[in-house]
Amino acid sequence: MFTMRPVGFVRSRFTETGQIPKGCGAKHEAEGSIEVLPEFEEGLLDIEGFSHLFVIWVFDRADEVRLVGTPPTDDRPHGVFATRSPRRPNPLGLTVVRLLGREGRILKVAGLDMLDGTPVLDLKPYLTSVPEGKLRRGWLAEAEARRKT
Amino acid sequence: MFTMRPVGFVRSRFTETGQIPKGCGAKHEAEGSIEVLPEFEEGLLDIEGFSHLFVIWVFDRADEVRLVGTPPTDDRPHGVFATRSPRRPNPLGLTVVRLLGREGRILKVAGLDMLDGTPVLDLKPYLTSVPEGKLRRGWLAEAEARRKT
Repeated sequence: MFTMRPVGFVRSRFTETGQIPKGCGAKHEAEGSIEVLPEFEEGLLDIEGFSHLFVIWVFDRADEVRLVGTPPTDDRPHGVFATRSPRRPNPLGLTVVRLLGREGRILKVAGLDMLDGTPVLDLKPYLTSVPEGKLRRGWLAEAEARRKT
Repeated sequence: MFTMRPVGFVRSRFTETGQIPKGCGAKHEAEGSIEVLPEFEEGLLDIEGFSHLFVIWVFDRADEVRLVGTPPTDDRPHGVFATRSPRRPNPLGLTVVRLLGREGRILKVAGLDMLDGTPVLDLKPYLTSVPEGKLRRGWLAEAEARRKT
């Protein structure tokens, strides 16, 4: 077992999960901030040079684990590791945000899809992308295709 | 505080950190597998349709936390949240792997940069990329430029 502690918290305009855009074509452009705790501020040195960051966070208000479930983007069930469901064995979320600026220990960001007050466990620089042409998106692509026909 | 448990383990040919390619231009093409524990196998349903996965894992053999450090890619210090250093407040690693195939609860993958036996906390489908033209890579781009001159 491993014990994790928050290094900061999300400040967003979302107070209920129903407010967060979901499903095919959902745009995550919401602006807000990540407030890093004072004791970790030193770890932000030079972060402002990166345009995008990975944020690893905790679904701290998620329900019990479901290994198989039907996501909002489909009418068929899929395994939790093939979805972004919050009801995961470890309730970890992963979001790519655009870094708009830094003021001390506050990071202004765009692309939030977390509730206000969500605990953040880690921040990492986003360095490279998989080219879109090399991506296969399994059941999600199939569900999108079915929806268009 | 949040308690996390392994959902599986990495099987790779790396038994010491010195064997893992590091620094500018390091290619992570190593093949190996992720063995998901039997009790979580159901959560893999339909994962084989995705070409790439995010793996969230634990640096279980990392030294004590250092908020600022000099990475192998530079001769200047940077904050831990602007690097991929293992010495993080929460010792979480994040790797994008290419999914080569699935045999029951064993995922054959390429792109491993973890030691053999590394605990895996979560797997998520890789759905979209930030276009390379929109990425800024801060100190890393500067260090690469200095190296070329």
